[in-house]
Amino acid sequence: MNEKLQAFVDDMIPEIERELKNQLAKSDIPDVLHESMMYSVEAGGKRIRPLLVMAVLFDMKKDSADALKVASSVELIHTYSLIHDDLPCMDDDDFRRGKPTNHKVYGEDVATLSGDAMQAMAFQALADLQETPPAAAIELVGLLARASGAQGMVKGQVLDMKGEQKLLPLAELEEVHIHKTGALLSYCIEAGAVLAEATDEQREQLRRFSHNIGLAFQIQDDILDVTATTEQLGKPANSDTSSEKSTYPSLLGLDGAREQLQARHEEAIHALQSIGLGESMLQLLADYIIERNM
Amino acid sequence: MNEKLQAFVDDMIPEIERELKNQLAKSDIPDVLHESMMYSVEAGGKRIRPLLVMAVLFDMKKDSADALKVASSVELIHTYSLIHDDLPCMDDDDFRRGKPTNHKVYGEDVATLSGDAMQAMAFQALADLQETPPAAAIELVGLLARASGAQGMVKGQVLDMKGEQKLLPLAELEEVHIHKTGALLSYCIEAGAVLAEATDEQREQLRRFSHNIGLAFQIQDDILDVTATTEQLGKPANSDTSSEKSTYPSLLGLDGAREQLQARHEEAIHALQSIGLGESMLQLLADYIIERNM
Repeated sequence: MNEKLQAFVDDMIPEIERELKNQLAKSDIPDVLHESMMYSVEAGGKRIRPLLVMAVLFDMKKDSADALKVASSVELIHTYSLIHDDLPCMDDDDFRRGKPTNHKVYGEDVATLSGDAMQAMAFQALADLQETPPAAAIELVGLLARASGAQGMVKGQVLDMKGEQKLLPLAELEEVHIHKTGALLSYCIEAGAVLAEATDEQREQLRRFSHNIGLAFQIQDDILDVTATTEQLGKPANSDTSSEKSTYPSLLGLDGAREQLQARHEEAIHALQSIGLGESMLQLLADYIIERNM
Repeated sequence: MNEKLQAFVDDMIPEIERELKNQLAKSDIPDVLHESMMYSVEAGGKRIRPLLVMAVLFDMKKDSADALKVASSVELIHTYSLIHDDLPCMDDDDFRRGKPTNHKVYGEDVATLSGDAMQAMAFQALADLQETPPAAAIELVGLLARASGAQGMVKGQVLDMKGEQKLLPLAELEEVHIHKTGALLSYCIEAGAVLAEATDEQREQLRRFSHNIGLAFQIQDDILDVTATTEQLGKPANSDTSSEKSTYPSLLGLDGAREQLQARHEEAIHALQSIGLGESMLQLLADYIIERNM
């Protein structure tokens, strides 16, 4: 990882994780529920989403006392979606990030409720912002609800379920990803832009950026699933090919997928350059996304 | 049902149901998800929660173009909780309001995602309010998140699960109800008060009212479970006793439960009287809650 990005990440991750714990440390939460929520929040992951929020503010040289809260609340939405996704009635996964999934430890009932509670908690965090004007806070609520709900992430999960076991054409595969992972990644950029009071032109280019790195992120995931080892991924490698799911490599071949990845990355960088963010933390994050090996 | 209340209900229910359909009629929702959400939203129910929101505004002689949206969004939260509650890993119910439960029709995966999407949609509705000042809208977001999440409704569901199969003392039983059903009922009253710009004193008395009718509602549910027929309830009668769950009648006897119901009802009415709402739609709703036979 680039040195400057590494320093940023090393700086931010402990703050993000402290804030996540803060958000979960509410009085009056039953012990088993709190433990189950903490278990999944502490299971780690790359914290890409909160990092994106923080990177927008960093690049636009804006400071917001609420940034960490906004950043962490997206991670709660992401984590709830993983818990529900892993349930036996969904993907039925026993392991996530090298650890038993939430329902394997706490049971399906508690896991379902933990996810439900985390979603509410994410919106609660936005309602509890201190310095952000109410009009901006309510804008964030609307953006997050849209990105995570029936027109966003949940839509992507439904499309994904329906598309499993059959080979989708590329356009439909991208439709899945744009919603399943892209919508929430785009929200992160948009949320950073709202907090940074970006102009309309900046927001439009940031949206172009996030659309393209969202897809790049997914293409790299698919490539890694073919090329990485189980140990690197913390989940069984080749898990997608074994269930005959459509992936970029299965549709385009490994080389074709890598070409797509480059094209998406370039488009993302062009968007940044057009608003003077060619040399930025967002650009380094975009580089990292296509270079990472886990 | 009282004539004046009946007229109010007959007036309101079609408007509430139209608004619920509007909220679900977003473009870009996958067909199966939309159908599944509509299925549970249209399964009916008494719409007590939206009616409470509307009754507060009616009684305080305030009008808000956003009232129906706020009222309907609570019903989305309530409906999502029923869908998840009915799942095999939770209460494992095959019927709800006389119809097969969501997962029996659409599968557990779609049912889980429908509930998730409905929760997001409820918050989206609050972000889309037209006339409510942003500060009030964001207050509603915070109140709804708290009432429905790990400190509210979800907490109640966790306590309820842990309490099943053992006889809880009355204080613990009430702790379950105060969270599982009470928190969201109280939110309805509070949301109405926010929209009506109620004073602090009015809000405090309305909270006292809602705390007591919340418990009264639950006591009457328990009593009906013993005394009503399966046909009246739309679900198997005696379902609580058959699983040896604590209920007001099982702890206090049927007469004791009825005494508690009267006491809660009186306390609720006193709260209303103290702010000049002794003769009001809320009072009629409180009467209905203890007199209803389904």
